[in-house]
Amino acid sequence: MNKCAVVQHILKAYSKEPKREQGTFFAPSNIALCKYWGKRDTELNLPHTSSLSISLGNLGAKTTIALEQALKDRISINGKEVDEDSIFSKNLSHFLDLFRPLNSVFFRVATEVNIPIGAGLASSACGFAAVVGALDQLYGWELPLSLLSILGRLGSGSASRSFWHGFVEWQAGHDADGMDSAGACLESVWPALRIGVLIVDSEQKKLSSRIAMQNTVLTSPFYKIWPEKQARDLKDLKKAIEKQDFMALGETTESNALAMHALMLTTSPPILYSQASTLEAIDKIWHYRQLGLPLYFTQDAGPNLKLLFLEKDEEAIIKIFPKLIVVSPFNIGAFQC
Amino acid sequence: MNKCAVVQHILKAYSKEPKREQGTFFAPSNIALCKYWGKRDTELNLPHTSSLSISLGNLGAKTTIALEQALKDRISINGKEVDEDSIFSKNLSHFLDLFRPLNSVFFRVATEVNIPIGAGLASSACGFAAVVGALDQLYGWELPLSLLSILGRLGSGSASRSFWHGFVEWQAGHDADGMDSAGACLESVWPALRIGVLIVDSEQKKLSSRIAMQNTVLTSPFYKIWPEKQARDLKDLKKAIEKQDFMALGETTESNALAMHALMLTTSPPILYSQASTLEAIDKIWHYRQLGLPLYFTQDAGPNLKLLFLEKDEEAIIKIFPKLIVVSPFNIGAFQC
Repeated sequence: MNKCAVVQHILKAYSKEPKREQGTFFAPSNIALCKYWGKRDTELNLPHTSSLSISLGNLGAKTTIALEQALKDRISINGKEVDEDSIFSKNLSHFLDLFRPLNSVFFRVATEVNIPIGAGLASSACGFAAVVGALDQLYGWELPLSLLSILGRLGSGSASRSFWHGFVEWQAGHDADGMDSAGACLESVWPALRIGVLIVDSEQKKLSSRIAMQNTVLTSPFYKIWPEKQARDLKDLKKAIEKQDFMALGETTESNALAMHALMLTTSPPILYSQASTLEAIDKIWHYRQLGLPLYFTQDAGPNLKLLFLEKDEEAIIKIFPKLIVVSPFNIGAFQC
Repeated sequence: MNKCAVVQHILKAYSKEPKREQGTFFAPSNIALCKYWGKRDTELNLPHTSSLSISLGNLGAKTTIALEQALKDRISINGKEVDEDSIFSKNLSHFLDLFRPLNSVFFRVATEVNIPIGAGLASSACGFAAVVGALDQLYGWELPLSLLSILGRLGSGSASRSFWHGFVEWQAGHDADGMDSAGACLESVWPALRIGVLIVDSEQKKLSSRIAMQNTVLTSPFYKIWPEKQARDLKDLKKAIEKQDFMALGETTESNALAMHALMLTTSPPILYSQASTLEAIDKIWHYRQLGLPLYFTQDAGPNLKLLFLEKDEEAIIKIFPKLIVVSPFNIGAFQC
């Protein structure tokens, strides 16, 4: 099944005419505590395993979409027009193709992003989620978030988790068309939880996670154990969240990330996102943890780390990592799952 | 079964009186191309999987053993007496206990080691092998090397591979007493092969490989796949050696080492022997390989790397790594398996 068929299936009963002048939607960025690594369907971004993330509160993408009179999409980020020949523009226009009622319909897409670009903060996840949400507003579909999640997933797998605040589980699902593969939020709130973004290198990643995860699925001899590991970690994380057991949350999150990077090491050719500065930071984290500081990390498809800690240790941790960007995931006003 | 019973079984028919004033034996150090990681029997050092190494030619340990009149062992390394209360002395005396015809018999053990100590060059492997060989000479047992290999294994698993030059396979075996778990040399010679020892950090390792591998066996979710990976790599390495296919040798060796370190990353608590300088060296190796230089690495339970390359590229590689210690494994006079 292809993306287009999925979109048509979801939107078949809905209006093809805008309900408003423009639609606006904010989607928070999200950091996976239990990772998404490996697709069972590369067209629909259907994962082999379920995953679990924490959204980054007010950090994310706010997108406004309106119809555009010109015969092409007009795309801007943070007020700056993006060149139509850039890969970014082409990817987004290609995604928008799924939603044009007619080939002659074009969009003006203005996105405000308040996260550091290229820091491995899943800007594509919140970006695609915000686009889908803005289209929903523009056309007045009023789709449930679970369906927006499915539409966002077609742009980027982890976008499926960017439609909620707090903890979000993306259930892998079983169906070939992916209609059961969507995000859902957990009810737990944990106001004392902090995420620290530690940028050790701001260069763009060398290998896209799309290609990296595909190579892992195809060549890592350990990949067949990954679903087992994921199922156990997901269960342990949900229990840790329910009990607000920070040590269990941190240990499982760190172990899950290390296992994902272990899979990459055993991919052929090997994939190594860590840099010297990454290892230095990990050494430091482990050193202070041994001294009694409850501090854990996770790492995605890049050299930067995301730290997990509690409000009470924020001051001490900023002294250790002065450039840390600290996020309070639940500092978002009223939380409703 | 305990070590003592194995030694008694092997030596039961042999003399308990020295045949000579002293016995001397040289054992080369060895570097595993297909790693030994995980024991099925921690008392007898019986491995879960077979492994394959290359011996380091004239680099190794030469040990001379004689009876000692004093009421304790006297141990020296490179002419310098070792304190009897040191861990080194205690371990060696404990190993020698297995070979005392009477509790009142003590040994004078003088070892000359010509490899950098603590560089991850398996000094314990060649050390235990040389001790066993020297005892064989002292008592005139004239045991076949396969039995010396079993005795050496009781001191340190990888010592079982240090009784031959060239490529050596340590067959895991199946028997509970380990009488089928011994080294055996491969007939292939490959004079152009070079091993480069790249010391990026000369500090002692933080965690002994004995404890590290045991924790891996007990806690890594990926360990159950390790035997499969090992069996395939061992087969591929033997084929590469037979065909003198350097690229296949290098790729399989590197992949095997990365898989072992991936196992460690997924151990609980995680084990990370790499340091920032290790990653910098790996980046450099991969960079030059991408430019066409056939250069590969392996890594053991420490931060240092061992490079694999061919004689023809030696000059270029020394320019890249000026401090590299280059070893010619087959530069040992007549080779006989």
